[in-house]
Amino acid sequence: MHKSRLAGFIIDCRTDDVDEAARFWSAALGLELRPGAAQQPLYRGLDTAADQPVLEVQQVSHESRVHLDIETDDIEAEVRRLEKLGARRIGAVKSWFVLEAPSGQRFCVVRPQRSDFAAKANTWND
Amino acid sequence: MHKSRLAGFIIDCRTDDVDEAARFWSAALGLELRPGAAQQPLYRGLDTAADQPVLEVQQVSHESRVHLDIETDDIEAEVRRLEKLGARRIGAVKSWFVLEAPSGQRFCVVRPQRSDFAAKANTWND
Repeated sequence: MHKSRLAGFIIDCRTDDVDEAARFWSAALGLELRPGAAQQPLYRGLDTAADQPVLEVQQVSHESRVHLDIETDDIEAEVRRLEKLGARRIGAVKSWFVLEAPSGQRFCVVRPQRSDFAAKANTWND
Repeated sequence: MHKSRLAGFIIDCRTDDVDEAARFWSAALGLELRPGAAQQPLYRGLDTAADQPVLEVQQVSHESRVHLDIETDDIEAEVRRLEKLGARRIGAVKSWFVLEAPSGQRFCVVRPQRSDFAAKANTWND
């Protein structure tokens, strides 16, 4: 048995200046930037409420896009569940896993991101 | 003066079978499909809570991707605000407007989508 749910969205920006990209998205969406950027040099967090999906701007080298993350307490079990639904493994990156949906979008399976994960995530029988 | 905020995310799927794509994303995210699909043949709504971003699967002819929508009570004023931030007008589609961010992602400016829009959206001085 394991749990998962939608964690949030990452705005992937092909840029040399992640702060400039983050300033645009912060102003466009009317969401402040979270402090503490220095700890994760390629990421800037937007200040969404605790009960809302996480929203981050990421500096990437591939084409700009938006991708979604699924948070889970068991990455391997969740990847297997998603494979049975038709997703394809692309590869592991640090602590997370990149998959591709049958409809072609890449997305990530990540560790729990939000404090209400245990209470509100879906439970799956492995 | 007008208002806007993040409305939600559209999972654009290049497919001939939007129901199949919607079934995948419904199961992957653990979100039921909303009834009433027949009214909008190219869209399938995922049953997110009223206080959460809207999440829809859309059949498209362009490459599959995920895009975000900004909801507003004044489309033209919001498009002008976003242009000043560096976004570029792509074009009008039905009741909404497609823009491109400086970082390259396309996104839409749409009418208010959620019932708490007036109470919770950001207010901008035009």
